[in-house]
Amino acid sequence: MYDVEAIRRDFPILSRTVNGAPLTYLDNGASAQKPQVVIDAITRAYSEEYSNVHRGLHFLSNLSTERYESVRGVVQTFLNAGSEDEIVFTSGTTEGINLVSYGWGAERLKPGDEIILSVLEHHANIVPWHFLRDRMGVVIKWVDCAMDGSLDPQAVIDAIGPKTKLIAITQMSNVTGTRVDVKTICHAARARGIATLVDGSQGAVHGPVDVQDIGCDFYPITGHKLYGPSGSGAIYIRAERQAEMRPFMGGGDMIDTVTKDTITYAKPPLKFEAGTPGIVQTIGMGVALEYLMAIGMDKIAAHEAKLGAYAAERLQNLNWLTVQGTAPGKGAIFSFTMEGAHAHDLSTVLDKKGVAVRAGSHCAMPLMEHLGQTATCRASFAMYNSFEEVDRLVEALELCHEFFA
Amino acid sequence: MYDVEAIRRDFPILSRTVNGAPLTYLDNGASAQKPQVVIDAITRAYSEEYSNVHRGLHFLSNLSTERYESVRGVVQTFLNAGSEDEIVFTSGTTEGINLVSYGWGAERLKPGDEIILSVLEHHANIVPWHFLRDRMGVVIKWVDCAMDGSLDPQAVIDAIGPKTKLIAITQMSNVTGTRVDVKTICHAARARGIATLVDGSQGAVHGPVDVQDIGCDFYPITGHKLYGPSGSGAIYIRAERQAEMRPFMGGGDMIDTVTKDTITYAKPPLKFEAGTPGIVQTIGMGVALEYLMAIGMDKIAAHEAKLGAYAAERLQNLNWLTVQGTAPGKGAIFSFTMEGAHAHDLSTVLDKKGVAVRAGSHCAMPLMEHLGQTATCRASFAMYNSFEEVDRLVEALELCHEFFA
Repeated sequence: MYDVEAIRRDFPILSRTVNGAPLTYLDNGASAQKPQVVIDAITRAYSEEYSNVHRGLHFLSNLSTERYESVRGVVQTFLNAGSEDEIVFTSGTTEGINLVSYGWGAERLKPGDEIILSVLEHHANIVPWHFLRDRMGVVIKWVDCAMDGSLDPQAVIDAIGPKTKLIAITQMSNVTGTRVDVKTICHAARARGIATLVDGSQGAVHGPVDVQDIGCDFYPITGHKLYGPSGSGAIYIRAERQAEMRPFMGGGDMIDTVTKDTITYAKPPLKFEAGTPGIVQTIGMGVALEYLMAIGMDKIAAHEAKLGAYAAERLQNLNWLTVQGTAPGKGAIFSFTMEGAHAHDLSTVLDKKGVAVRAGSHCAMPLMEHLGQTATCRASFAMYNSFEEVDRLVEALELCHEFFA
Repeated sequence: MYDVEAIRRDFPILSRTVNGAPLTYLDNGASAQKPQVVIDAITRAYSEEYSNVHRGLHFLSNLSTERYESVRGVVQTFLNAGSEDEIVFTSGTTEGINLVSYGWGAERLKPGDEIILSVLEHHANIVPWHFLRDRMGVVIKWVDCAMDGSLDPQAVIDAIGPKTKLIAITQMSNVTGTRVDVKTICHAARARGIATLVDGSQGAVHGPVDVQDIGCDFYPITGHKLYGPSGSGAIYIRAERQAEMRPFMGGGDMIDTVTKDTITYAKPPLKFEAGTPGIVQTIGMGVALEYLMAIGMDKIAAHEAKLGAYAAERLQNLNWLTVQGTAPGKGAIFSFTMEGAHAHDLSTVLDKKGVAVRAGSHCAMPLMEHLGQTATCRASFAMYNSFEEVDRLVEALELCHEFFA
């Protein structure tokens, strides 16, 4: 049985109040809260076990290196990658996608080559490709979603042309919760020799991931959305794509030898990790992923599916509220608007009742434009959210309705 | 009075033992330990105050944003920058220098343009410039140091030619402890319109910094060497240089508007900070810098000067030990070798007595080659090290001498 109350007790911040009301934290799409085991791991690392990694031979350096490097295997298991050498640590998905843009795109693409994006993408999966367009003459081809937020994988496949070199697509929209059939897209792309990046920022948080089954080449994740520390992350990069890449950031750790005139690089994954890494936040991310796997990503997905269905039903009954995105099988992310009230004002009133939601364009302006919105409120659920919290959201929305009507 | 014992009590890890002996942590050049106030700030942030920053309007998001953004002013004060908008947050010096290489160098330099480096540089201040040589045909001009590790600022100035566009130079060598007269160099460069980057990774840790007095354009620092969290850092970028730069990483937060066909960027410093930043580690870095400023960087410098003089004297008396670098005014960083023992073996024996030092090439291979070394042991001192710890290092070295003689 999935004991959401027991899980809530693992997260110290969830017992706090905000504006005199219990915290109802529904801003998980932006960042998730941290369980005590993650906080304890950080404290232990700094209080008892801290040192720089890799280059030392003393006790603390070895201990720290062991703790840090063991996370590679944890991420490998979490994503079911074929080898832990295919896991590169980053500070989050943004750095991960920039690594692909600068390390693979700038090295492999030529003017006129095409990158396919969906309109569902987060700015993190748009701006790095815009750089290649702006600086190298690469062409971006957009695929629209339906007005319910769903994305036909065949539309993406149909957009492939002779100059298509990369498809970069999200697994789950951070605005509408749309789940994309990335497996169908990646298998079609792979059959044509086209590289694929699947943005796992949201997708990896809400269900089991198997990068080998998906068949993608690049799969970045963000630690802070996965209940881990801020500034942590990783990216799966298929070994054969690693071999096509040049390094991104230069510095210590990613080199083999440096003279005044020559440099040789370390083997991947170190080749793509310059300088002292985010040691303690990576250790914390490993603890977070182990916590998730001990509970079971399938169980988390099942809980969130029930929670999402309940929230969808309750929000649908508010006939003065418009929910953006109703694609079948969508995740528990709800963007909504209310006639006569700006999203920012809604958010502020909800906050008075302790309900934390996000308001704005959610770093997805092309999607907002496609949906005809300038700003929405977004309630995004997580493993620790309860049915009672759905009720609290609805009650607070009813208050908004009275207030602004 | 500088009460080193009281300061030591602020750092929980310093009371631990290693291999049955009290920890004598002399690997501070690689990374420093953290005071309890920093660990507590991290715990508090995650347990009570956590949310993503900037884009939210709810209580926790505002609180987190306030805590995070207030660090910009702390760094401004720490470096005496003219404006907090000249402070860009990074994950450390490596990212900071790559930001300059990709954001300023790749935008402003042309084939044949010259960058001047000293042989004292860390790989983090070499490899990003090598990228520009390799990819754009920029020329790197090297300036050697004397065999005692000292660097004549006039030699750097004399290396300036009509094609020189940037001088990138360390304030303090991480191998020899050499302090470089960066002010003389930067003022000469500025008079000729040449940009200057001063690598503050070590320099900022060991004494007061005033970037306006130095006159540099770029000054990166690393939080984890400054007693702050891993994965934290910042770079001072003079406003007029910011205006010459294109963005480095693309993603959320650094944009103003995104459509399918166009992107406009946020104003600096946000223009150079893509995606969810290292929220909690930046907050922790702010607490670390406030801790340092409360004690006083001048007082820390005075303590380390006495400690360094004592260590220099004691090490010099070991006539079987060779210390690399004896430049006048050098910092308390000692790289040494012993005839008949490899640096790695020395390090291992010292570790048996709880003395943590680093062995290897210290991410400074050109300098090691210049000094005729392949590897050295390095004992690097910090604000919390004591005279007794110098004695412990010397005792342990005497043991090494007996062991390997």
